[in-house]
This record gives sequence, C-alpha cells and structure tokens, in this order.
Amino acid sequence: MPNVDLSSIWLDIGLNDMLPLERKAAAAHEKLDELTMQDGTMTGWVNFPETLDKTDLADISATARHLRSISDAVVVIGAGGSYLGSRAVIELLYSSYYNELGIGPKLYFAGHNLSSRELDTFSSLLENVDFSVIVISKSGTTLEPALSLRFFRQLLAQRYGEDSISDRIVAITDEKKGKLGPMADELGWKRFAIPSNIGGRYSVFTAAGLLPMAVAGVGLQTLIFGARAEARKLNSIRSFENPAWQYAVARNLLYSKGKKIELMTCYEPSFKYTAEWFKQLFGESEGKQGKGIFPASAQYTTDLHSLGQYVQEGERSLFETLVRFDHSGAPVRVANDFADSDGLNYLSGKEMYTIQNVAENAVISAHNSGGVPVVLIEAGEINERSIGAMLYFFQLSCAVSGLMLGVDPFDQPGVEAYKSNMHSMLKSL
Amino acid sequence: MPNVDLSSIWLDIGLNDMLPLERKAAAAHEKLDELTMQDGTMTGWVNFPETLDKTDLADISATARHLRSISDAVVVIGAGGSYLGSRAVIELLYSSYYNELGIGPKLYFAGHNLSSRELDTFSSLLENVDFSVIVISKSGTTLEPALSLRFFRQLLAQRYGEDSISDRIVAITDEKKGKLGPMADELGWKRFAIPSNIGGRYSVFTAAGLLPMAVAGVGLQTLIFGARAEARKLNSIRSFENPAWQYAVARNLLYSKGKKIELMTCYEPSFKYTAEWFKQLFGESEGKQGKGIFPASAQYTTDLHSLGQYVQEGERSLFETLVRFDHSGAPVRVANDFADSDGLNYLSGKEMYTIQNVAENAVISAHNSGGVPVVLIEAGEINERSIGAMLYFFQLSCAVSGLMLGVDPFDQPGVEAYKSNMHSMLKSL
Repeated sequence: MPNVDLSSIWLDIGLNDMLPLERKAAAAHEKLDELTMQDGTMTGWVNFPETLDKTDLADISATARHLRSISDAVVVIGAGGSYLGSRAVIELLYSSYYNELGIGPKLYFAGHNLSSRELDTFSSLLENVDFSVIVISKSGTTLEPALSLRFFRQLLAQRYGEDSISDRIVAITDEKKGKLGPMADELGWKRFAIPSNIGGRYSVFTAAGLLPMAVAGVGLQTLIFGARAEARKLNSIRSFENPAWQYAVARNLLYSKGKKIELMTCYEPSFKYTAEWFKQLFGESEGKQGKGIFPASAQYTTDLHSLGQYVQEGERSLFETLVRFDHSGAPVRVANDFADSDGLNYLSGKEMYTIQNVAENAVISAHNSGGVPVVLIEAGEINERSIGAMLYFFQLSCAVSGLMLGVDPFDQPGVEAYKSNMHSMLKSL
Repeated sequence: MPNVDLSSIWLDIGLNDMLPLERKAAAAHEKLDELTMQDGTMTGWVNFPETLDKTDLADISATARHLRSISDAVVVIGAGGSYLGSRAVIELLYSSYYNELGIGPKLYFAGHNLSSRELDTFSSLLENVDFSVIVISKSGTTLEPALSLRFFRQLLAQRYGEDSISDRIVAITDEKKGKLGPMADELGWKRFAIPSNIGGRYSVFTAAGLLPMAVAGVGLQTLIFGARAEARKLNSIRSFENPAWQYAVARNLLYSKGKKIELMTCYEPSFKYTAEWFKQLFGESEGKQGKGIFPASAQYTTDLHSLGQYVQEGERSLFETLVRFDHSGAPVRVANDFADSDGLNYLSGKEMYTIQNVAENAVISAHNSGGVPVVLIEAGEINERSIGAMLYFFQLSCAVSGLMLGVDPFDQPGVEAYKSNMHSMLKSL
C-alpha cells in the first residue's frame, strides 16, 4: 500500500544517477530471492505472511482471549525485536495512552533494561491487579528478559502460589534453540515458536509480534492480509515502479551524496514506536563495516519546536523520510472564539487535519530550501491492513537497501562486543 | 553536582589539544558574563535560580494546590521548551507511568502537534473526569498551543458552562509580549509570567516548568536549591576544574575531530524526556550556520538491542554522552530459581543495580574499542536537588559550548522558515 514520492529529492537526483542504482536494486532483489531459496539463511520473513498457518493464528487468538479473561494487566517481557513490533502497532492504532483508555488489559513492556527503579514501578502498578506474563526471547539467553522473567515469576508465585501460575505465563522463543523453550515445556507454560530463520527485527508477523497485539485487540487477520498483499505486490514488480526499490535507491543515493543521517518523521504522535521499530530494523541491518545511515526520528510538529532549528540550519548531513497517513475518523474542527483574542478566527471551522496537511507541505518546502531532501511515504489510513502493508514494505526495503550497500542485512555481529565484556565481568562478580 | 569524567576520551584528546580549548571556554564564559550584564540579551536564565522570588514560588505552589483540589486531570498545553522541562523532571522522578501510579492528577501534555487523532484520544480520556488546563506559550502566538487552547476551552465550557471555567485555566506567557497575557486578563484566568529575557528552551526554572511540576508533587524548593547551588559553583570556578567547561570542551573537540552526532544515553528509562529536553536545548542552540552536533538519544540497555549494532560498527561519526545516576531506593535482588533453567543462578541474590553498573562499564569499554568516545556525566541520586543541579549544568554547558562554536546559543532564526510558509498557506485556505 505505501507509495513513495521522490519528487522533493528529484533536484538532487538526476536520471543519470538513477539508472545504475535501479540496476543495483534489481540485483539486490535477485540476491534476496536466492537467499530465500537457500537453507540456513535468515530470510524466513520474506514469505512468512504468505505461509503463516491459519491454525497458528487461531491458536494465538485463543491464547490472547485466555489471557484477557484472567488478566487486568499483561507484562510483555522482551527486548529489541521482541517488543518493538507489537508496541509499534498497538500505539499506532490506539495511541500511547492505550493503558489509560480501558479498552483492553493494561500492557507493561518490561525486560529490555536493567533498571531496578522500573521494576519497583511495575511492582506498584501490579499491586492488587490480576496479571499474566508473555515472555519473548528469540535466543532465550538474553540477560535482560531472563532476569525480568525471574522477577515476574516471583511476583506471580507470591500472588497466586507457585503451583497456580503455569496458565499465566506464555513463552515465545526460537523453535529449536535456547533455554526458554525447554523451560516452558518443563513448567507447563503455553509456548509459541519463532522460526529459526527469522531474526528478531524481522519477527513482527510471528507470534512474537502477534500475541501482544491480539491481547490489545488488534485484528490479526487484517494485519496479515495487508502484509500478504504487500508481499505479493513488492515481490512481483521488478522495475523502478516498485516502491521498495524507490525507497532503497533514494536512501543509497542520498547516503552516497553525504546524507549520513535519516530522520524518520510523522505528524501522528502515535507513530513514535513505529519509528523506534524502524530504527532497529535499519540501524541493525545496515550499521556495520563502518557504514550505514544513522537512523534518527522526530515527531512532528512536536519536534519542529525542538529539532526544527537544527534540521533547517545545522550541518547539511541529513535527509528526512516522512510517513504520511490519510485522515480517518470524525473531523475535528477549530472552535470559534467570538472575541478572537488569539487572532485565529480565520481558521474557525477548518478541519485540524487540513491544517496539519498545510503544515506538512510548508515544512517540506522549507526543509527543501534549507538543503534537506524529503522522501515522502504515503501509507494510507491508519488501520490494521495498511499497517501490515507498511511494516512489510519497510522490511523488504531494508533488505534491498542493505544488500545494495554491500552488507549482510540479517546479521548483527556488533552486539556481541559488549555482551562478551559483560558476561566475563558478571561471572567475576 | 554533576561531575564530568573524560577518561574514556583521553586517548582521543591530548593535552596539546586541550589547552587552546580551555582558553576558548574561558573566553566563552566571559562573553556570557558580558551578555548577562547587558540589557536586551536572552541571558535571564543565568541568574534566575538565584533571583527567583520566594513569593512567586509560594504563588505557584498555591495555584498547584488549587488545581489539584479541583482536578483529576490537568491538561498542559505547550510546545518545545514550554513542556519538555516539566515533563522531563516529572518522568525522571516518577517514571513515564506517572499517570497510572495515582500519586497526583493525571497530566496530559497537549498543544505541541496538530493531530486530530490525539485530540480525539484526549476527549475520551477526559470523559467524566474533572479537569483543568495550564496553557504555556512564551510568544503567545504559536499555532499549536493556540489551537489546542481553543479545543480544550470548548471542552471545558461544554462540561462546566462558559461562565464557570475561569478558575480552571492558568496561563503562562511572556511578561510583556503576545496575545495570551491580555486574553488571560480579559477572561479572568490566573496568569504567570516568563521573563522576556529567558527563551523557551532555558525556561525550566520559570513558572513554565515549575507549575506543572508542582501539580505532580515535585518539591520546587529543593529543585531550585539544587539549581542555585550549581549556578554558584559553575559561575565561580574559572578553570578546567569547571565541569561545564569540561563538557563544553569535550563536545567541541570531538566535533572538530569529525564526531558529528552526540548520542545522549542513560540506563534509567525514566530519563527519556530529559534527553528530549537536552536535544532541544543543544540542537536549537547550536544547530545553525551549517554547524552543530546532531543531538540524538538512546535508552540503555533497551536500545543496545536496536541501535547497539550501529553504535558498535556503523559510521564512526558519533560519540556518546552517558548520564549515570547513583542508586537510590530499596535494592532489587535477582530471584533464585532452584531448577536454574536459565543458567543464571550465579547471579542469584545480586542487586540489579550492580548488574546494571557492570553493563555500563562493559558497554563503555566495548564502544571505546569500536571507536566511540564516551563522555561520562555522574549526576548523583535521582532527586529534586540533583535534577535541579543537572538541568542548570546542561544550560550553562550549552551556552559555553555554543559560544565556543561561534554561534548565538540564544536565538532560533531557522524556525521561522516553515512558519512563514505555513502562515501564508493557512491564510489562503
């Protein structure tokens, strides 16, 4: 569904620049095809929306219903790709105020840091609240979710008794590897698998993403439907008509021209965690071998009042990607003020969305004048179907973009550096 | 209170590099002194913690008590510097779950975007909830807070009747300029002033920052006490013993050596909005004339699982600033697991804070090895006093750093570009 509009960067990108890049995108997509047909590569996500089993989906939905029926709050333990996807979708649909809206069990995303202050806060929030736990760890060995699981197991045991908590814990982990799977089987926890050939940052359409979404009431079938349609479309168009190629080409070209920072922006505040998900996807896929665009994000118009000055006049090393949504829902109109104390009565009765659109266009034009190219991604209305399509669009764009850059977009060798330091230091505590 | 530790960047910074920079810092601080003594400059913040009137503080506290007594929720309307400071302090002290903890009226930060979806959400959240409004706009003419005020005035009037809402609105605006002040007087709203010589991003210790904090229960006197002590200290040490000089020198030197991105990091998740406040302060102060470090932020260890790969192995154009807090509160210890299913029993009984400290050291060492210098800022325990000191430290560091860079750290000429586009486009709607 997303369409890419490169008109505002056209001045920076001539047709002569474009043609070799288009060939590179074609080659990258072919390379992805090859990898997808090979065993032992991390490309299981490419066809996953297509192959995802209906029975699995039904099982996920049934488990979500069970958790909703016994819980006023659900703690989702997971780090990186194990929580960003579900949190992104839930907030985009229901806003960051989901917990306060009372439309489903409260969700607490834990297990992605080591803060004892935050664990204290969770203890307070869960006092006298019936709760359950979903623990998501692809590897099953990451320190933060493992320690967090110990904390919340203890809390559950204190609340319900050691022998009565097995139906309050669901584990989602690699289908083959790691300690979490056997642990779940041993203790009688419901368990879902993440295919071994899907990495954490590409796992949003697996149970890792879907179960927390279903708990919050997200329509999984529609989401998957959107992703599937997008997968079919993007994998069949083999020309520069392919929006994923357009985006991948624009990124690589802007990067080669010294635009080293991509600022992911959106005018919907509920997009915040989608930007976080995006930053992991692209940063972890491309940031290696001393290369890669630095992924940053800003919420507009909010951050026009903080980062706006820098974007307009700071170092000319950044480009912007703007995800634009069509309006949905009832219009909100500017109220009239008889006294016109603020002098804004010329806007009375206008729709806020129209004004937001004006702001978007004004900002694109101003940033262009200031030397900041803007890649525009039109993502449709905010609903499950278009979100499914958008997430798949970013995944495929990322794979093509990374392969064009000449890196392996599916590994993450750099995250081992601090982990090995840490493990040896912890062993000697 | 904050101490700066440059030991991890010492390898990159030789003593020969340091001495000329130290002289530049001294000159910048002297320049700031000069500006502070002149009329018509935006340096009112320098001595503000010292000169802030006790009566004003009492008035702010009394108004906060009034709002608490009549409100289950308070909508704080403001953009940029008009909300980031108070939100930063409230979240750092009470976490991003403040609204769910039930320790004060819920706070909704509005008026910094044009999203009708978000206004819809606020309408739902305020149904059957007694609420009040604090509107903060330094200029009194910014579009987002002005439109937001229209929206919430209408909501208040529908709820309580047009004639019964004047004690539910408090306005905070420039002492002299703009339309909001006269409007407040006309309509009988309580009104606080932001001194004309204090810009939005330096206004956290004025009523703009303090009133929402007081509503949430923040101890204002202790916060101001911390800021005042820090102001005295930092403005009296005129040597490289001055932590603000150390930080400003490190930033300028790293920048001159090609480190164009500063990643502000912290291991406490509740620091998130302090990082946002920091990004406005430095980005808006320094990002001009094609210069300035791009301000980015990450929450650790959370984002080690997303941006960590990039930081370790991506483009070598970034440095990290780590704000480290001492532990406070009761220790949280790792629970024992008799079966040791996760193999982590060697950590049973250890304090989470100790483990977090190990992670901090492991990460500093890994990032140093990967070519990322780390500036360490030790900020004490998380409490009002040390937060007051830290915020003042960043403000003074920013002024010195910007003056060293050769820009005016108190203007923001670039934010006019899109605004003038937008106004002409809105006029022709």
